[in-house]
Amino acid sequence: MKFTAQQKKVMEAYEKVVSKKNKKTCFYNGIYEKYENPVLTREHIPPFWKYDFNTDTTPHFMERLGVNAVFNSGAIYLDGKYLLIARVEGNDRKSFFAVAESDNGVDGFKFWDYPILLPTVEGETNVYDMRVTQHEDGWIYGLFCSESKDKTNPDLSAAVAAAGIVRTRDLKTWERLPNLMTKSPQQRNVVLHPEFVNGKYAFYTRPQDGFIDAKSDSGICIGYCDDITNPVVNEEKLLSKRVYHEITEVKNGEGAVPIKTDKGWIHIAHGVRNTAAGLRYVVYIYGTDLNDVEKVTAEPNGYFIAPFGEERVGDVSNVVFTNGAIVNEKNEVFVYYASSDTRLHVLTTTLDKLIDYTFSTPEGKKTTYECVEQRTELISKNLELFSK
Amino acid sequence: MKFTAQQKKVMEAYEKVVSKKNKKTCFYNGIYEKYENPVLTREHIPPFWKYDFNTDTTPHFMERLGVNAVFNSGAIYLDGKYLLIARVEGNDRKSFFAVAESDNGVDGFKFWDYPILLPTVEGETNVYDMRVTQHEDGWIYGLFCSESKDKTNPDLSAAVAAAGIVRTRDLKTWERLPNLMTKSPQQRNVVLHPEFVNGKYAFYTRPQDGFIDAKSDSGICIGYCDDITNPVVNEEKLLSKRVYHEITEVKNGEGAVPIKTDKGWIHIAHGVRNTAAGLRYVVYIYGTDLNDVEKVTAEPNGYFIAPFGEERVGDVSNVVFTNGAIVNEKNEVFVYYASSDTRLHVLTTTLDKLIDYTFSTPEGKKTTYECVEQRTELISKNLELFSK
Repeated sequence: MKFTAQQKKVMEAYEKVVSKKNKKTCFYNGIYEKYENPVLTREHIPPFWKYDFNTDTTPHFMERLGVNAVFNSGAIYLDGKYLLIARVEGNDRKSFFAVAESDNGVDGFKFWDYPILLPTVEGETNVYDMRVTQHEDGWIYGLFCSESKDKTNPDLSAAVAAAGIVRTRDLKTWERLPNLMTKSPQQRNVVLHPEFVNGKYAFYTRPQDGFIDAKSDSGICIGYCDDITNPVVNEEKLLSKRVYHEITEVKNGEGAVPIKTDKGWIHIAHGVRNTAAGLRYVVYIYGTDLNDVEKVTAEPNGYFIAPFGEERVGDVSNVVFTNGAIVNEKNEVFVYYASSDTRLHVLTTTLDKLIDYTFSTPEGKKTTYECVEQRTELISKNLELFSK
Repeated sequence: MKFTAQQKKVMEAYEKVVSKKNKKTCFYNGIYEKYENPVLTREHIPPFWKYDFNTDTTPHFMERLGVNAVFNSGAIYLDGKYLLIARVEGNDRKSFFAVAESDNGVDGFKFWDYPILLPTVEGETNVYDMRVTQHEDGWIYGLFCSESKDKTNPDLSAAVAAAGIVRTRDLKTWERLPNLMTKSPQQRNVVLHPEFVNGKYAFYTRPQDGFIDAKSDSGICIGYCDDITNPVVNEEKLLSKRVYHEITEVKNGEGAVPIKTDKGWIHIAHGVRNTAAGLRYVVYIYGTDLNDVEKVTAEPNGYFIAPFGEERVGDVSNVVFTNGAIVNEKNEVFVYYASSDTRLHVLTTTLDKLIDYTFSTPEGKKTTYECVEQRTELISKNLELFSK
């Protein structure tokens, strides 16, 4: 077809966004590099997902199905392509998933022509935050939050969060499995471990007392099931627990699929604390034993990522969240994190650096006094070095 | 008088602000245009409202009565002038109303010399968010929130919200009528319909359970009374209801006075949802039947306006709110919306476009699956067109 002048303008603006090159910023912490531009935003949505290009039915060429935001994305590296399974939110608040593809992992992400028409289950209103696990059984699994109206509660906002499960071989055809069953009334932020553990599927879970509140005195757990087509976890063992006055005080949850290294599994998770302006979400890291996934072997102090600059503000401000990371064949690491439920960023590092950060960063101390002791020791050693 | 150097500087800065030209931004959605600058801010307040210019009594030429913000404004088009009845908030948190006038509706808004000394009622602490209705009875009515201390509640913050009513012919002399009486314990966001309905005055109401909480299982209602000098509404019929998992989940409320068109009444309203960082206010649109104001005929999906860029942050972040719009004799439409309880913006469109948006935008779907089906259909039609 021949575009009208306005249609052409809109398509050109879109092409400009998706072909924009990304550059590293001058930010330095030795742990990772940050980039000038987000990798996915609402501007990355193809105009033909929003506008009706038929001038007979839309004489004014206006958006008919707007898109509000693109954020929390699962990630997978397939055939040399960096693929994000993004959370796309319409102007109507409903989220859905769509695959965006790039050749280098830091820019040029372009959505495939169609979003994913994910098979649904009875009563499911909304889906979001898919974690994509390439499992050793040969399938690619997607675990996500499956949200339904809580019909037992008269409050209009009352909802139930469960872990939805799909599987695919190509990110195009998706098979829906039953939602995960656990002893907890609700679940969110469930992630499938990529390997069998004693012949079983292993799930990282996050038990919840209600739709919003995480289970008290709990945290990220691990549980097992024999048959993923009948996903029932009877016991959830506590792995990374919430701690008073730490970044995980109010909630925490598993993020990306754990990364396997010689030194152990590296877990990218999130922690939540309360503030006068609402909750604050940061991303942290912990490590588990290569031969015993129930054994936490590393808990580097503090956060790995926190919101800074423009990341601080969005639809839900003061949030960074990760549910996808990629390690390529050169052991380069790409961590995809969303800021404030509004846009998706990347940071890059190497597996060596990530291992060093995870297993050599000192643990957090429980009191400010001990923290200052710890820091004073660091300073004093440095100043001694300086004087040589 | 001869200004001191500092006084002159302050007056010149003010003159520069009120004479600043506004320009359309490059934003495009086909529905409306946005503008570079807000139309009213705290900088638009005349310095003589804040400073004492008498150097005997204020040797340091300092603000004696500061102004914090200018935001939610009613709007009316009179004798070719665009008039905003703004909510002005002093540094002391009290709001009051003041008229600002412009020749073109997008820039040059200048406050009249004096704010409105609105007649008050016993116990009224604060007033805000006036909707200005040019009624077919010949009067101009102002409906606003009239807030009083809840003396039955020991909580210091406990308040009661009611709908205050005033009328005028020139926006200068205001007659106070009794506050609206309904069966609901509290009311906010009440708007007077501009025409008689079966010989009665018609009010858009928003019943509340308390000062903050909207009535559950309710929404924007319509109710009638015979005599506006004795404003009693005995029945509120639900019109635009709050819906689970939509932008109206927590609250909604009527915004501007409905706009009459050949296709029906166009209502600009607001919807509120909860987030981890507090409430999020967006503006949405619905349509009602020209001959039956109780019949909703259009519910375009999602929001009409959401906060973006600098609009996101302010005294109450993550808020856009509309309580005034103007249609001029050329059928140009001016929608005035405030961002984050801090400043007032304008967007422009035409009546044709607004009608097309209201009555031809598809309705929202209830589940993510249906939403993706709906979007897939749009995409598929577009891609088919593209291939021709």
